[in-house]
Amino acid sequence: MSSKPAITLYHHPHSRSAGARVLLEELGVDYRIELVNLQAGEQRRPEFLALNPMGKLPTLVDGDVVVTEQAAVYLYLADRFPEAGLAPAIGDALRGPYLRWMVFYGSCFEPAVVDRSMKREGADPSTSPYGDYERMLATLEAQLARGPWILGERFSAADVLWAAALNWTTQFGLVPKSDVIAAYIERATARPAFKRAAEKDAELLAAA
Amino acid sequence: MSSKPAITLYHHPHSRSAGARVLLEELGVDYRIELVNLQAGEQRRPEFLALNPMGKLPTLVDGDVVVTEQAAVYLYLADRFPEAGLAPAIGDALRGPYLRWMVFYGSCFEPAVVDRSMKREGADPSTSPYGDYERMLATLEAQLARGPWILGERFSAADVLWAAALNWTTQFGLVPKSDVIAAYIERATARPAFKRAAEKDAELLAAA
Ligand SMILES: N[C@@H](CCC(=O)N[C@@H](CS)C(=O)NCC(=O)O)C(=O)O
Ligand SMILES: N[C@@H](CCC(=O)N[C@@H](CS)C(=O)NCC(=O)O)C(=O)O
Repeated sequence: MSSKPAITLYHHPHSRSAGARVLLEELGVDYRIELVNLQAGEQRRPEFLALNPMGKLPTLVDGDVVVTEQAAVYLYLADRFPEAGLAPAIGDALRGPYLRWMVFYGSCFEPAVVDRSMKREGADPSTSPYGDYERMLATLEAQLARGPWILGERFSAADVLWAAALNWTTQFGLVPKSDVIAAYIERATARPAFKRAAEKDAELLAAA
Repeated sequence: MSSKPAITLYHHPHSRSAGARVLLEELGVDYRIELVNLQAGEQRRPEFLALNPMGKLPTLVDGDVVVTEQAAVYLYLADRFPEAGLAPAIGDALRGPYLRWMVFYGSCFEPAVVDRSMKREGADPSTSPYGDYERMLATLEAQLARGPWILGERFSAADVLWAAALNWTTQFGLVPKSDVIAAYIERATARPAFKRAAEKDAELLAAA
């Protein structure tokens, strides 16, 4: 019997699953890619919807376990493979900040960026989950400015999430490429795992 | 020296920190409440912004550690006090689903509810983080319908988050009170911790 890796990432290189692949490369674990052609609507196939009724990438399968939602996928993987040291352990003083910045991505950054991409105002700042765009961005930049990583000296899975997110949102002009943000993206994407993921993604698309 | 509990929750009963207080009651730990009068703008005080530049509740302080963002606060607390059994441990088959539904709250449910509260369309479903409102709600309801809890038989911190959120969003008419959702809210809010938190919150407001 051939040994099939337990970990499968449902993925498309030009989607929010790009960073999840980088994380798998950072972790150095065996994984399998299942390419989901979003243009062709493969995310609406019943087999895929059975895993993730939202029809969204990334979707991660680990044996019988299904994990969806970027921050959940990252939190899950980094804890599952502690040898790689990409998650401050429970009890580590950085665990709280790690969770804070992981969750901030989906609950503050993304909704702010979506409103910006639609050229519309957010909700009233006192009820909006992200306050307003300027405060959200200033909060994030102040944290990144401490650097070199979002938790300071320690590189973590949160940096994979943030570098991947800032990379595409600055390219799309949704986030200004300030010096702090540009340097952060450059630092992260210079890592071998980012390069390996990009190469493998290019091969994947060429073969498809 | 009097022993000051290490855990402080910056809180207002009529805010998104209400569920975090319930969780502290579920955990049965010693904690201190710091009431932040949002109407009076106390969330803009420099001392508070130094903890959370977003000026948002809940904000949790544990010794030198600051945690913000609801799902992060819940994940942090439930792992910090494992005796209470409110978080499937790393390695438990329910850990992945637990993270998935925790993160789903801020990255899918909240943005969908905000769009609904503003009576506006979301982004194009294929790029919107939550697809569309109907798919988001159907996905959540299908999960709750398995019940009795969001992870099935096992009650967890995720249920505190979801019951608190569904409680206020159904009250505000942002989420329909279907039979499944009504029964779930009733099951959760019947727990002693929900009742204790409500009583203590009433005392807090009466004293203020
Ligand atoms: N809340 C999800 C959003 C993921 C998402 O929107 N993925 C897009 C690709 S970037 C997708 O799969 N779209 C396909 C579709 O909705 O049809 C997360 O953060 O993981
Ligand atoms: N993304 C945050 C949002 C929290 C939030 O918006 N809290 C509101 C109360 S419900 C708040 O503190 N508003 C005060 C303000 O922004 O001035 C989370 O989920 O924890």
